[in-house]
Amino acid sequence: MPTTTPPNVAPAQWLNLHEYEAAAKAVLPSPIFDFVAGGSGDEVTLREAPAAFDRWRLVPRVMQGLHEVSTASTVLGLDVSMPVLIAPFAAHRLCHDEGECATARAARSARTIFTLATPSTVSMEDVGRQAGTWWFQLYIFRDRGLTRELVRRASDAGASAIVVTLDMPIFGRREADERNRFTLPPGLEFVHMPKETKAPSTMPGSRVATAVNSIFESALTWKDLEWLASLSPLPVVAKGILHADDAVRAIEHGARAISVSNHGGRQLDSAVAALDVLPEVVEAVGQKVDVLVDGGVRRGADVLKALALGARAVMIGRPVAWGLALDGERGVLQALELLRGELERDLVLCGRGSPGAVDRSLVRSVTPPATVRPASFPR
Amino acid sequence: MPTTTPPNVAPAQWLNLHEYEAAAKAVLPSPIFDFVAGGSGDEVTLREAPAAFDRWRLVPRVMQGLHEVSTASTVLGLDVSMPVLIAPFAAHRLCHDEGECATARAARSARTIFTLATPSTVSMEDVGRQAGTWWFQLYIFRDRGLTRELVRRASDAGASAIVVTLDMPIFGRREADERNRFTLPPGLEFVHMPKETKAPSTMPGSRVATAVNSIFESALTWKDLEWLASLSPLPVVAKGILHADDAVRAIEHGARAISVSNHGGRQLDSAVAALDVLPEVVEAVGQKVDVLVDGGVRRGADVLKALALGARAVMIGRPVAWGLALDGERGVLQALELLRGELERDLVLCGRGSPGAVDRSLVRSVTPPATVRPASFPR
Amino acid sequence: MPTTTPPNVAPAQWLNLHEYEAAAKAVLPSPIFDFVAGGSGDEVTLREAPAAFDRWRLVPRVMQGLHEVSTASTVLGLDVSMPVLIAPFAAHRLCHDEGECATARAARSARTIFTLATPSTVSMEDVGRQAGTWWFQLYIFRDRGLTRELVRRASDAGASAIVVTLDMPIFGRREADERNRFTLPPGLEFVHMPKETKAPSTMPGSRVATAVNSIFESALTWKDLEWLASLSPLPVVAKGILHADDAVRAIEHGARAISVSNHGGRQLDSAVAALDVLPEVVEAVGQKVDVLVDGGVRRGADVLKALALGARAVMIGRPVAWGLALDGERGVLQALELLRGELERDLVLCGRGSPGAVDRSLVRSVTPPATVRPASFPR
Amino acid sequence: MPTTTPPNVAPAQWLNLHEYEAAAKAVLPSPIFDFVAGGSGDEVTLREAPAAFDRWRLVPRVMQGLHEVSTASTVLGLDVSMPVLIAPFAAHRLCHDEGECATARAARSARTIFTLATPSTVSMEDVGRQAGTWWFQLYIFRDRGLTRELVRRASDAGASAIVVTLDMPIFGRREADERNRFTLPPGLEFVHMPKETKAPSTMPGSRVATAVNSIFESALTWKDLEWLASLSPLPVVAKGILHADDAVRAIEHGARAISVSNHGGRQLDSAVAALDVLPEVVEAVGQKVDVLVDGGVRRGADVLKALALGARAVMIGRPVAWGLALDGERGVLQALELLRGELERDLVLCGRGSPGAVDRSLVRSVTPPATVRPASFPR
Repeated sequence: MPTTTPPNVAPAQWLNLHEYEAAAKAVLPSPIFDFVAGGSGDEVTLREAPAAFDRWRLVPRVMQGLHEVSTASTVLGLDVSMPVLIAPFAAHRLCHDEGECATARAARSARTIFTLATPSTVSMEDVGRQAGTWWFQLYIFRDRGLTRELVRRASDAGASAIVVTLDMPIFGRREADERNRFTLPPGLEFVHMPKETKAPSTMPGSRVATAVNSIFESALTWKDLEWLASLSPLPVVAKGILHADDAVRAIEHGARAISVSNHGGRQLDSAVAALDVLPEVVEAVGQKVDVLVDGGVRRGADVLKALALGARAVMIGRPVAWGLALDGERGVLQALELLRGELERDLVLCGRGSPGAVDRSLVRSVTPPATVRPASFPR
Repeated sequence: MPTTTPPNVAPAQWLNLHEYEAAAKAVLPSPIFDFVAGGSGDEVTLREAPAAFDRWRLVPRVMQGLHEVSTASTVLGLDVSMPVLIAPFAAHRLCHDEGECATARAARSARTIFTLATPSTVSMEDVGRQAGTWWFQLYIFRDRGLTRELVRRASDAGASAIVVTLDMPIFGRREADERNRFTLPPGLEFVHMPKETKAPSTMPGSRVATAVNSIFESALTWKDLEWLASLSPLPVVAKGILHADDAVRAIEHGARAISVSNHGGRQLDSAVAALDVLPEVVEAVGQKVDVLVDGGVRRGADVLKALALGARAVMIGRPVAWGLALDGERGVLQALELLRGELERDLVLCGRGSPGAVDRSLVRSVTPPATVRPASFPR
Repeated sequence: MPTTTPPNVAPAQWLNLHEYEAAAKAVLPSPIFDFVAGGSGDEVTLREAPAAFDRWRLVPRVMQGLHEVSTASTVLGLDVSMPVLIAPFAAHRLCHDEGECATARAARSARTIFTLATPSTVSMEDVGRQAGTWWFQLYIFRDRGLTRELVRRASDAGASAIVVTLDMPIFGRREADERNRFTLPPGLEFVHMPKETKAPSTMPGSRVATAVNSIFESALTWKDLEWLASLSPLPVVAKGILHADDAVRAIEHGARAISVSNHGGRQLDSAVAALDVLPEVVEAVGQKVDVLVDGGVRRGADVLKALALGARAVMIGRPVAWGLALDGERGVLQALELLRGELERDLVLCGRGSPGAVDRSLVRSVTPPATVRPASFPR
Repeated sequence: MPTTTPPNVAPAQWLNLHEYEAAAKAVLPSPIFDFVAGGSGDEVTLREAPAAFDRWRLVPRVMQGLHEVSTASTVLGLDVSMPVLIAPFAAHRLCHDEGECATARAARSARTIFTLATPSTVSMEDVGRQAGTWWFQLYIFRDRGLTRELVRRASDAGASAIVVTLDMPIFGRREADERNRFTLPPGLEFVHMPKETKAPSTMPGSRVATAVNSIFESALTWKDLEWLASLSPLPVVAKGILHADDAVRAIEHGARAISVSNHGGRQLDSAVAALDVLPEVVEAVGQKVDVLVDGGVRRGADVLKALALGARAVMIGRPVAWGLALDGERGVLQALELLRGELERDLVLCGRGSPGAVDRSLVRSVTPPATVRPASFPR
């Protein structure tokens, strides 16, 4: 019955994205695995991302007579094979020598959107030549000329949108990276960054990331967003929003879509889960604006929950990195197709023929069970 | 005081159904144990089934002067020694050479209802000759002629009802089976299935269960239920309902009873617990329709909770498989009688003389205790 | 400041009742420990008893200018040094050769009430000669003459009240006892029981406790309570109540006090925690009737919580058994005094001068913390 | 962007306060570690302190255009570099030979307030000579002359406030100390205490702390607070309040600030978490009075949560002890600066430029996730 044409790729040996993570952990040097997998502080927010999905259950419907099922959707008017986009994350060459190019080609094959991060290890022009639909994630630099230049280059290279990250006025502190004294390996550099931060001796998140902190603008205002939106005709996605009022203001100041995100638990530890605030953001900005959410999506059912709570699509980052680490372009494509397959199956099992058929009635919050703990005496 | 006449069987060495499971795990080849015990995806829904019962506590009454206590009840007007029926599940010969015949004979001795599954490993005619009251579980095939033929055969063989499963428009993905490359062992086949799926090289739930997926109808509508109900005078039980509106529609389209079920956590992972939606289904369809529930029943107290929340009876599957694996017909009978004994004792302890005396006042939800977790520092 | 005169006993080496349990476990044969410590079924109700206390926190007040603090109280008009009584439990000689006599003497020294159980291993006359204030716990026998005789004997021997247990129309099934094939050791017998059950080959709780089940009346009614109350001028305490309506009816039929109890988790597993229903029982019967509660009291703070929720006093059983097992009469006295000392200290810390000064404002339920669990993938 | 001038100290090797604790545990004799780290009874209240913070999440705002960020604040009108003060705790010389002097100097360098405890191991005159802004924590002695003398000495030595502890009418029982037979090591004494308790053979908290119990006044009234407030012009902070009414009365009787505290879980075990009652205390006393809170603060995010719930500042004790144990004055300063750095970073990440910009909208309680527990069978 499923009628979406899947990409031409055989499934990998890993049965789900959890297994991708475990396998990637086995092949990556541990400082690199930690850099990608980790979060800031006590990683409360990192761990809560999947927990936020666990608070919801699906209520499937039967006998819907679905003759066709498709995971296809659109985001910002762009066709995607599924409401799952690739989140921006730094330095794909940490995972695979072809880096962002491999990821971009995989996204093209999977017919979804690739988001290239400012701190990428491959130039956007190289990516643009190999990518399908792609977006450029932008940090606004103190040097506004450099910022403007990046937007121009992204536009020229074929990006379809600018994803501006708003939740990094300062770097979050990822203690594992400090413990590991993590740095970019020799030969890798942040190609879009000014010379002094191309290969910082300590990565973002390390204790004295002074150089990087001084490069990005920390005192952004909504005027800056307005300015950014004026630089090019590319639509702007405001990323890193966790409050409905901020979403409204972002739209008022030129954003065309909202990305509800806590930066993968890598910035403010103890920040609320993105999924938890998604419904109020959606309610605030209305149905006309696409709202994305990320953090903790590992299963097709997670995608359904996000859609039911009002997201237009989700973004995934770390699972993409695991696929990349395991098998480059093919690994990413397999991981994406795995998740798309789960989403397709779960749509069918829920009696929904498409992402557009998913509404709030699909989910309900689950009553926490009564976990009887042993007596409080510390044995 | 208990006045139900128990079947003539000595108790087994296993003191409760948990021990049956542990013992069966020790004797069954692990791929078979996994196939029976497992669920789909992350098994969230599988694990939540018992948790849903744990959210309720019983409030017993005293001094009720019960001179007679009986676990006997009726379901669809049929007499049963207890409101516990045998749920349909595939391939009993995986557990014991006599397969469904042994289970059916045990159910007859226990005076409860046996449900034969379409994917059985013994023919319904053989079962019909040895069973007491039994029902036939049906998947609606794309080939409606074959479907009609199965209903006719079931009716001729003496089935008292048709249990039509509505929650399998596509197979759930049980990853353990894929990991185990589980297949039907040589000599076993699905005797009611068309030739090409009699012994599929990969079982339902395995990754490329294309053959089986293509055999069953995935685009069912309520009209199909109406058609099915018209095929024979046998009452139809609509199985796999998790939403009150679907229950109402099922009744409108000819079902005579509702089975609230998530297919033992084997189809849509993250689906809501059946017990959690039971009360609203019961409220929607009223008292005139029998509502069954399954998933996670392991104790007499669980049966009482389901009754208190409006179920006419519960169905159990896996515990029956464990009894079958351990000692064939006798093992099943002992397991059933064990549970009946628990139910009888708990009825007495609750001050209720019969299943009919159980109402909503018997249960209350328990406040989740305050589980203080250790400090968040990752040790 | 504390002004209650403590009994003349040095503290033991065990610092709290948890340590008493651990130490007793080390010295008792494991079938005896299991018999005393265990509960029925999955022991959900057993484990929930302490959890029910953990759902509450104390809100102390300061600057109350307490010049005198006393744990003394009265129950049924009888003076006690603290609102902690000894719950009835069977066969004290399992723990110590002097059995119930030792426990009774300890209670006398501690100036609290000892409750002798029908299935005791010492005669009530022997106990009566050594006890201070004591009550007799009664099961109503099918043989009402025997029942009447026990009441008469208790009255003659000096009991101050009859505690009639209402929650045992049939024995709960304690599976550990069956696993251990637990029986009374040679030389011990239930001295108040008819000959055939004096030393049953299987204890109450074992699978075929048919003999005992046939001795006690299982079809009790409120009329029986009325009859019992008429047998002697002794006040009757109705024990085993978990529903407010049953409490009201008990009072209407002659009970003078209510004991809210689930029989230490040994009868109906999955029964609601006694503490959870205490407030509604208290509200139903009003302030004029003393309401007792038992189950899970291990700390002075637990006693305060029970008082704050309306109990006149608590009963403790297992901790008494541990004291008895460890050091006979002295062990019981030390355990009682330990708990009294905790209660006294906690009264002071709460700014309350006496049990009578404790009211509902002392407690508040605690919000369950947000326990973030790891991702649901079964590793 | 952060514009608070940090103290001149290099960061230590420990990345967070959890690591400080672990490192201190490795270097301190275990009875000393236990004395500092432990709580009373079952340590329910001790463990709940961090759990109470875990019930809240932060909701950051973006694009606030913060050009300056400062952690500086005032408490009782006194300038502090951050709303984090040093809580009073006993016997700093247990951790480091320079004891309270080292801590006081570190607080001076960190420009925050040091609170000297009555049971200190260095005289307040010595501390006063080396401290910046400091407060004196006072227990009211039965001997009011001695009490008056301590206030006079504190005033003369330069203390800026008297913190009077109200929650110790009797010592809490810390069982670990009894188990360890903990005593002050030779050479250490409580220099402000009367001779007989200068070096008690058993510390406060030990079983027979009779001597100490007899020294402090246990029957305090609000009149005593009024008397205390009249002794000197120093403002009085009422510490150990857990009820809004007590806070109101404290202010009525002369207190100038409230410290909501359960004494670090060392007094009444099972007492409510200080953070849980903070909002109602703040509401009761209004915005005009500074309210402090302590217990479980280990992260900058914890400070933010306390501020959002109405605290003017928090106090920390144990982390200071760990810094002191690890590296004396420098260790304390590093620990303080670590926490200040976290607070500064988290202020920026929350879009708040100063403690004064934090309000209730920064936090929201988190829905407890649905922790599915395994089946209840005790394996």
